[in-house]
Amino acid sequence: MNVDGKHFRTIWIKDDKTIQIIDQRKLPHDFIIEDLKTVEQTAIAIKDMHVRGAGLIGATAGYGMYLASLQFVGEQTLESYKLKLIGAGEFLKQSRPTAVNLEWAVHRQLEAISQKKSVDDVISIVKQTAEDIANEDADHCQKIGQHGLSIINKVSADKNGEVVNILTHCNAGWLAFVDYGSATAPIYAAHDCGINIHIWVDETRPRNQGARLTAWELGEHGIPHTVIADNTGGHLMQLGLVDLVIVGTDRTTYTGDVANKIGTYLKALAAFDNYIPFYTALPSSSFDWKKSDGLADIPIEQRNGNEVKYIQGLHDTEIKSVLLTPKNSPAANFAFDVTPARLVTGLITERGICKANKEEILRLFPEKDINS
Amino acid sequence: MNVDGKHFRTIWIKDDKTIQIIDQRKLPHDFIIEDLKTVEQTAIAIKDMHVRGAGLIGATAGYGMYLASLQFVGEQTLESYKLKLIGAGEFLKQSRPTAVNLEWAVHRQLEAISQKKSVDDVISIVKQTAEDIANEDADHCQKIGQHGLSIINKVSADKNGEVVNILTHCNAGWLAFVDYGSATAPIYAAHDCGINIHIWVDETRPRNQGARLTAWELGEHGIPHTVIADNTGGHLMQLGLVDLVIVGTDRTTYTGDVANKIGTYLKALAAFDNYIPFYTALPSSSFDWKKSDGLADIPIEQRNGNEVKYIQGLHDTEIKSVLLTPKNSPAANFAFDVTPARLVTGLITERGICKANKEEILRLFPEKDINS
Repeated sequence: MNVDGKHFRTIWIKDDKTIQIIDQRKLPHDFIIEDLKTVEQTAIAIKDMHVRGAGLIGATAGYGMYLASLQFVGEQTLESYKLKLIGAGEFLKQSRPTAVNLEWAVHRQLEAISQKKSVDDVISIVKQTAEDIANEDADHCQKIGQHGLSIINKVSADKNGEVVNILTHCNAGWLAFVDYGSATAPIYAAHDCGINIHIWVDETRPRNQGARLTAWELGEHGIPHTVIADNTGGHLMQLGLVDLVIVGTDRTTYTGDVANKIGTYLKALAAFDNYIPFYTALPSSSFDWKKSDGLADIPIEQRNGNEVKYIQGLHDTEIKSVLLTPKNSPAANFAFDVTPARLVTGLITERGICKANKEEILRLFPEKDINS
Repeated sequence: MNVDGKHFRTIWIKDDKTIQIIDQRKLPHDFIIEDLKTVEQTAIAIKDMHVRGAGLIGATAGYGMYLASLQFVGEQTLESYKLKLIGAGEFLKQSRPTAVNLEWAVHRQLEAISQKKSVDDVISIVKQTAEDIANEDADHCQKIGQHGLSIINKVSADKNGEVVNILTHCNAGWLAFVDYGSATAPIYAAHDCGINIHIWVDETRPRNQGARLTAWELGEHGIPHTVIADNTGGHLMQLGLVDLVIVGTDRTTYTGDVANKIGTYLKALAAFDNYIPFYTALPSSSFDWKKSDGLADIPIEQRNGNEVKYIQGLHDTEIKSVLLTPKNSPAANFAFDVTPARLVTGLITERGICKANKEEILRLFPEKDINS
């Protein structure tokens, strides 16, 4: 989407030896483009969250394998060259072990090279596959946008063109994918069609992805928005100031349970209590086709409590970290929660919209083989 | 309660001309005691939130009237002296116009002096009334603690003495009253009885009263606690890690609707969804005996959006404010929300525990005259 009037993806090939990314750690205060030239730099970019978000992590891993394919051309045999690439894949996978898309992208690259008979052929297919992964991600998000647009369109019509207020949590924006985003894709599509919209942006403590990233990308694209503390959404819903909730997901079971950033469940409860539609937007790569009970089966990452105790922001012209709590108070930091399917109005996928249950999900994805 | 092993109230008479308070703006990083010698200093302390919380604001106003009674002894006539005190009362009331206890304390002082025939008698009764207001506040909170203790006791017994996990939101602690607090009073009582408890402390964005104040006072008193982002409580409840929720209230209707710090409603929804008891602890001064519909009738203060965009904390040895959002993103800052009575398991008052409905509330407070 646009930054200062110019279109950007979150990752792209600059030249034959260089991948470029936006260093998202510096947002919203600085817009810094970073060069990646090795698989090691790529792993650091993933591990230290220069890039984040399911789609973008997958695309970055894809391009990381391309960089690896350039690094190891000096190997004596095709076999040792391929072994090096398998090792690079393992190395990349360890940079963020719970990211499903990372594993998937590495696996796809290794599949692609398995039958290739020369180093040149490997490099060529790895580059093509990296581009395919990125393009498919953007394409899926764009389709999510078109399907989700129909929902916003209907609300707008029901309100006679009055502003449609949409609440979102965390960043399921283009910064988390290659372009468009998942939860934001219908928002960008609606804005670009001239529909009158306004977005309530949950701050999303403790890492503030909403306040930092979603607010930034919406602002750069020119979309009216207001940042709110995570505590606020329920009250806004009680007041009739929210027409629609759209969130992303890190993983959704084939039965419709939605694992997403911590706090999503609370907003789903409030939406349900106030008869407000609650949608999860996701590319099908975020479905977990093996898990049927989100609460029981999806492991929830616990991160360092210092992410709760300390927060970073801009002081004068420098990024500074400040302590919010008593120095000796412990803090707990659960990264995600699970919203049960019963609270989810629908899922917006690249193939269309469905209810959050096994039957409807499998109607959209009939090729999936569910053993249960 | 205790600070570094020594008992403190939040406000006290130091000598005949000086009131002392804890400057709560400096907590949790510095424990600063401040002298108040004039009604003007008292008004600033209320307005700029050196003191905050319903009970403490009332007590501070009571003592402020005492300081005023010393300031105006030079007046020519008893009538002009009393007029000065009425003016001081008006002045105090404007320091925090929505604080019901402030108005109530000033009114009580003016009632007390109305029949007094000399300046000395006025000073004497104003001093006594200020002490009465403070003592009654502490006494009510202590009684809330004793009644609430029975709830915690029962949970502890049901769990065979295993740790009882209690979640609280914002600061309804002794810092918000003269001593004990409302939501924290049962917690202190349980701890002092040797019951095994642990408190989940909601950070409470945007002003972080939980992370700053509740965590500090629990820590100083030696109570095991963990700070969490406001987003986290629902997930903890889903996991069975919360046995009980106890919050305070800024105003509760006689029908049981609870206005409290923004975000309380979300926790009440999650407690309800997970069959977890949700209690509001309040001295009866926090009942609004005129309002029957909390959502429709209780006005919700909107504060400056910069409280969302910026946050203060300790950097090295200095308190610094940092910007969290893009500079140009707007923010909205609703201070309270209303939890409908249907989500409230019970109210813990100085007279006992009751369900959150008109019949049960009036059974505890039969002297109240409700016209509806």
